[in-house]
Amino acid sequence: MKLYHGDILFSPKLGVLTALPQGYVAVEEDGAVRGTYPTLPPELRDHPVEELGHSLLIPAFSDLHLHAAQLPSAGLGYDGTGDEWFTQCTYPAEQRYSADPQYAAQVNQDLVEALWENGITRSVIMGATGPQPVKDLMERLGRKGLGAYVGKMNSDHGAFGEAQEGTEESVAQTLDLISWAGERKGRVGYILSPEFIPAASEELLDFLGNKAREENLPVQSHMCEGDFDLEMVRDRFPVEKLYGFVWDKYGLFGQTPTVMAHCAYATEQEFELMARRGVYIAYCPNAIQHIPGDRFLPVRKVLELGVPVGLGSDIGGGHSLNMFQNMASAIQASKTLTREGALSAADAFYLATKGGGGFFGKVGSFEPGYQFDALVLEDERLRSYREYTLAERLQRLIYCGDSRNIARRFCGGQEI
Amino acid sequence: MKLYHGDILFSPKLGVLTALPQGYVAVEEDGAVRGTYPTLPPELRDHPVEELGHSLLIPAFSDLHLHAAQLPSAGLGYDGTGDEWFTQCTYPAEQRYSADPQYAAQVNQDLVEALWENGITRSVIMGATGPQPVKDLMERLGRKGLGAYVGKMNSDHGAFGEAQEGTEESVAQTLDLISWAGERKGRVGYILSPEFIPAASEELLDFLGNKAREENLPVQSHMCEGDFDLEMVRDRFPVEKLYGFVWDKYGLFGQTPTVMAHCAYATEQEFELMARRGVYIAYCPNAIQHIPGDRFLPVRKVLELGVPVGLGSDIGGGHSLNMFQNMASAIQASKTLTREGALSAADAFYLATKGGGGFFGKVGSFEPGYQFDALVLEDERLRSYREYTLAERLQRLIYCGDSRNIARRFCGGQEI
Repeated sequence: MKLYHGDILFSPKLGVLTALPQGYVAVEEDGAVRGTYPTLPPELRDHPVEELGHSLLIPAFSDLHLHAAQLPSAGLGYDGTGDEWFTQCTYPAEQRYSADPQYAAQVNQDLVEALWENGITRSVIMGATGPQPVKDLMERLGRKGLGAYVGKMNSDHGAFGEAQEGTEESVAQTLDLISWAGERKGRVGYILSPEFIPAASEELLDFLGNKAREENLPVQSHMCEGDFDLEMVRDRFPVEKLYGFVWDKYGLFGQTPTVMAHCAYATEQEFELMARRGVYIAYCPNAIQHIPGDRFLPVRKVLELGVPVGLGSDIGGGHSLNMFQNMASAIQASKTLTREGALSAADAFYLATKGGGGFFGKVGSFEPGYQFDALVLEDERLRSYREYTLAERLQRLIYCGDSRNIARRFCGGQEI
Repeated sequence: MKLYHGDILFSPKLGVLTALPQGYVAVEEDGAVRGTYPTLPPELRDHPVEELGHSLLIPAFSDLHLHAAQLPSAGLGYDGTGDEWFTQCTYPAEQRYSADPQYAAQVNQDLVEALWENGITRSVIMGATGPQPVKDLMERLGRKGLGAYVGKMNSDHGAFGEAQEGTEESVAQTLDLISWAGERKGRVGYILSPEFIPAASEELLDFLGNKAREENLPVQSHMCEGDFDLEMVRDRFPVEKLYGFVWDKYGLFGQTPTVMAHCAYATEQEFELMARRGVYIAYCPNAIQHIPGDRFLPVRKVLELGVPVGLGSDIGGGHSLNMFQNMASAIQASKTLTREGALSAADAFYLATKGGGGFFGKVGSFEPGYQFDALVLEDERLRSYREYTLAERLQRLIYCGDSRNIARRFCGGQEI
């Protein structure tokens, strides 16, 4: 057992902040939080206390959606159309990542460092079609002490031109990765990762759905990103028609832990099914704002329907791993919809911590039993003018903060 | 004469990038650019060349609208209504800034450092009602080598409750500041700064318009920020009705160099008058995105009408002095309007450099005769994966860059 003493802030519930100025968090040997206390409880007096002064101690961030291979192209191609972005920026970056192990290792190492630097202790990462870079990335994440789900992208059906791989190859590589990953211990696991329905054959969808069920493997993909993919799905699946119903037909929609990126164009029926099944939405506010005139996810509405939501940087459809910036962007994007649909700073903080953390189990809060994933924030420069409440300090960090404000990082109780 | 050799990029015109990989900029002794050259011209061979390697050399940034007193409240109050923001965040911050010289000096010093750090060599700054902090800020900017216009806020008519100052006081303090500033040399000048029409008496508007004309002083204010101020103006000025026409009546609308922040709710008639008169709009993309459901400036349309536009951080209505982030935000905000209205990365770069720089004369470009206001950018980490064009490097910096990428800063030919 160990105690941390400082200015403690976390969000146990959407819109709610728990603030403990000069409070205590007690962490068990196994890395789970025992509890938080406004003053030191007598029964814990014999345990060591680590003094954090007036640093802010918050749960670390989760990023529910990003593409490892697109780190080198983040920021590029946003001036053009979606098609141009796919064919000129994204696919070339992914192909090189799959084909060139030395290059992929450089990208992976930079990504791991950037996740660490930005206080993202848990992430859901889509690789490209190549299997080797996925192993390399999982190993590097593990060595750094970060938690993550990583998957090789399955893409055997041409959505924009030729298919990126054959079905047999996709299946064989996935089986190999599942078995390789299954022998590893730790916080990094494998996740089934079809690119999206238009890029998956029915045979592949069948295989993935069966594997998810047999091995209880999590699933990540994209869904209802724009009108282009909706049409493709409707044309190929005239019976199910809706994206969510096709995923569901193949057992890839909450039968095991599932996270779907974007969902801006999903219907009420699909949102309701997601709420019932606990399918997560990775809300990627930067990515949606790069597509002119595109529809935004009605984020408050889906939260009210009970759909679990976390934030996604969506590197490189989105541009930033700075989760403070992603929170600000989430709030700003929500405000372009309706006054009623606006997210507050506390809401965005919930999404970046407990909202997304839920995909990894008890992560993203300091409630009892939660993994101690935490960040020590130094915001001296932002709070030097007067007394700011902890909630005000959070707001200042969301809007004005970056990785320079993150002094220390903990994952599963360990400092990393 | 001195030459700089490196990867040179500037925007001479909206949407146009001039890229000179391993090119030269020649700078005269007086700080003006003589020209840019893809290779070293024979007649310049005897002049010293400063080697910048593969660093990117770009014009420095201008920020056409920010509030010095609001630096300590940037990021706060965005969850509430506009009224709450004014009465709970902004006015208290401004009142303390006006009343407490030691505090104001701290804020001013932090602001000067932040402008320098973020490569903003020219800015238009609104102070609060107190005159002393304006002098202090002008002195600090001058010592740092930065260019700016700074003004005491004139606010003698209650817009939200009581007036912040009396008319006589406002006039006397302004006269004193004009005379004090007139005796100073350098790149920091005084600018007349009525808060906005609802906060100015007719007597004050008269005084300011006369002073502008008599002493050829520039003018800054706010205009058509939301529907609240439009109504206030219409009620008080039933003849002119429109905001722009009221400014114009008092000689505060382009009779001397004028910049108006926001203008999102301005009419076509007002935009046309601004184009004819050369009245600048300070486009503040972060600020507008903090107000739920608010109208955005149709930025491409006003550019097409010929209105001069630059970017404004609008600290603390906006949250960031990172001009890369402000460019990204300008693009993202423009894309929520229409596909046709979208700004490109090159457009945003123009706005942040030559667009806003024009308010200060020949600033913001490397064309002959322009002041050498420049930044040396280190983007090693962003361009380590492959060969990126200079335009791609700019995009990566806009979306992924911050002050850590700014290695050196020049203003008027001098390194600062």
